Amino acid sequence: MTRVQDQGRRYFTFGDDGQGLKLDNGSHLGPVTLAYETYGQLNGAGDNTILILHAFSGDAHVASHPGQEGEAGAPGWWETMVGPGKAIDTDRYFVICSNILGSCMGSTGPSSENPRTGAPYGLDFPMLTIADMVRAQKVLIDHLQISRLLTVIGGSVGGMQALQWCISYPEMVCSAIPLATTMRHSALAIAFNEIARQAIMADPKWNQGRYGSTPPELGLSVARMIGHVTYLSDEAMRRKFGRRLQERSDFSFNFESDFEVESYLHHQGAKFVRRFDANSVLYITKAADYFDLTGNGEAAMSGLAEADIRFLVISFSSDWLYPTYQSKELVRALKRGGMDVSFCEIKADCGHDAFLIENERLQEMVSGFLNGVMTNGGDSHAL
Amino acid sequence: MTRVQDQGRRYFTFGDDGQGLKLDNGSHLGPVTLAYETYGQLNGAGDNTILILHAFSGDAHVASHPGQEGEAGAPGWWETMVGPGKAIDTDRYFVICSNILGSCMGSTGPSSENPRTGAPYGLDFPMLTIADMVRAQKVLIDHLQISRLLTVIGGSVGGMQALQWCISYPEMVCSAIPLATTMRHSALAIAFNEIARQAIMADPKWNQGRYGSTPPELGLSVARMIGHVTYLSDEAMRRKFGRRLQERSDFSFNFESDFEVESYLHHQGAKFVRRFDANSVLYITKAADYFDLTGNGEAAMSGLAEADIRFLVISFSSDWLYPTYQSKELVRALKRGGMDVSFCEIKADCGHDAFLIENERLQEMVSGFLNGVMTNGGDSHAL
Repeated sequence: MTRVQDQGRRYFTFGDDGQGLKLDNGSHLGPVTLAYETYGQLNGAGDNTILILHAFSGDAHVASHPGQEGEAGAPGWWETMVGPGKAIDTDRYFVICSNILGSCMGSTGPSSENPRTGAPYGLDFPMLTIADMVRAQKVLIDHLQISRLLTVIGGSVGGMQALQWCISYPEMVCSAIPLATTMRHSALAIAFNEIARQAIMADPKWNQGRYGSTPPELGLSVARMIGHVTYLSDEAMRRKFGRRLQERSDFSFNFESDFEVESYLHHQGAKFVRRFDANSVLYITKAADYFDLTGNGEAAMSGLAEADIRFLVISFSSDWLYPTYQSKELVRALKRGGMDVSFCEIKADCGHDAFLIENERLQEMVSGFLNGVMTNGGDSHAL
Repeated sequence: MTRVQDQGRRYFTFGDDGQGLKLDNGSHLGPVTLAYETYGQLNGAGDNTILILHAFSGDAHVASHPGQEGEAGAPGWWETMVGPGKAIDTDRYFVICSNILGSCMGSTGPSSENPRTGAPYGLDFPMLTIADMVRAQKVLIDHLQISRLLTVIGGSVGGMQALQWCISYPEMVCSAIPLATTMRHSALAIAFNEIARQAIMADPKWNQGRYGSTPPELGLSVARMIGHVTYLSDEAMRRKFGRRLQERSDFSFNFESDFEVESYLHHQGAKFVRRFDANSVLYITKAADYFDLTGNGEAAMSGLAEADIRFLVISFSSDWLYPTYQSKELVRALKRGGMDVSFCEIKADCGHDAFLIENERLQEMVSGFLNGVMTNGGDSHAL
């Protein structure tokens, strides 16, 4: 068993043997690099690994690495949940988070160099599915010599990956915590993703995905604004912005930003343009749109029945992108498959984003559930 | 009293005297043309006029003109509600519908010729408010020698105009039916409008509003898709589209439309580009964003108190653009102002669009309310 030290971002590359990773669309992709970070230490029994799956535009840096400088020491995207003594306690668990295939945060994606041309893949990058992303993670987990995961946990697109892990590799998963997610992308969610894609592709700078160092900033910014609104809620926006004017006492009577909510969206759009790749948005949103466990569903779910995976499903009351009724559909399907499922809808007014925001109830639920699987279920199934 | 015959589209032009219409932003606009249509006949007492206010991208053609050929005989946008024997019974009421100022469906707007340059106004068109639109309608109503309106009725942006009529000209309004609307545009609604505007302005063809005969089709199409999703509901989209694929048996694994909902949105975008002006979208959405009766609110509402206007406020259960709680806020404000208010939330799963779709309950509510104001309230206050 490898003892992996807590540290900053690392890279794992595989499939440079000419074979590559076989994908759902029938093609092979290689070489594949995954950026990942680990926290805490694998215990002697090798049964304390938690795999955290990030959402759409996330990365491997889920939390700060205590005592480290620079980027490694900076707060991560789930700093409220992951760290020493926190709900996902890195003093107790060995935590892995890898950037997804198709992203632009260190893993191979459409902005990576296509070895056949020496230029970025662009649209020559193969279309991915959530199962493909999980397939790549599996190679990383094997490489780290982890044979069983105490828990797979993630929100939104990360929740889809958590569910896909249970379907693809049920023998490796002890428990799963899908948060603010769905087992099939709805027409509404597909619609917003498609509008975001159209906004990017309508920008002439997109240039069929070959934009080099001059990305389609305006289109990408509009795409992010659309996404951002779907992550919030009517209540949260009322509370955060209402109709407050932006640094002015009266209407501009022109097309500048009058309202704080407008400036906020512009800011979110501009920030995203600096950190994310437009083609990655296209590929990851499409993978989410394709996600549907009910497609070959009954088969998938019955495959689980033998696996004895424990589930904690959590939804948030004001999430209108993946509303509670969709988590309930998931719970019913899992129960029909004979799974041990706990479910909780957490009251929160901040919309889909709620799973990323400090929430005591979420911390308690996750920490309690992990305690349970670690002491009761974890050991017996672990190896 | 003028006897106006039922007929197709007509035009009324005023303010070509150099004075023009004084607007909220302090400027004057002239000449101003309003396209309008009328249905039925004004009665002897002159107390049977209903003014219908259309929504964002509507026009004056609210219903077909019976027995007429061509455009005049074609179904209108509220054909289910307006016509002989219908809820808004044109055998009984004299119905007027005018295209709003700022639009592109026959009335003066940013695509109209600027008399000072001979070219379309573009961004030289003055910024409008809902009150400016109502101010222009008032000149038309005066021209038609109507001194009192039995009802002002409209949904969405039309509902805002109905409310504004009550505030601006309370002595002329006998009753009002605001449908699926709000008394102040929320942060969420502003956000979606701003994203739609940004999508248009991000299109290089927009060219600061000077696009002549080559409009920003891609940006306008994205803007319409955004709007369209906000008019629907999660339930309606699930029922209408679900995850059905578009003319294919499996995923495309490219960025073509896979799902029916995607093709539907593309179709809506393309259709809108053919019929609507991009700059009009900018101006009308901005007017909606500025709408807030609670701004100088208490004063506005107390001005109503003397006016004795009867209200029927209707919301739709799945409308998440102007949700029921916003209609309830309006009802409470009107009641605090001493108004006679009826309120109904109609159960409908089709979202904000519900007010445009055939709905028996809506027909009954409107027809019953109109009966009441015509026989009880209408006469006594009419002249």
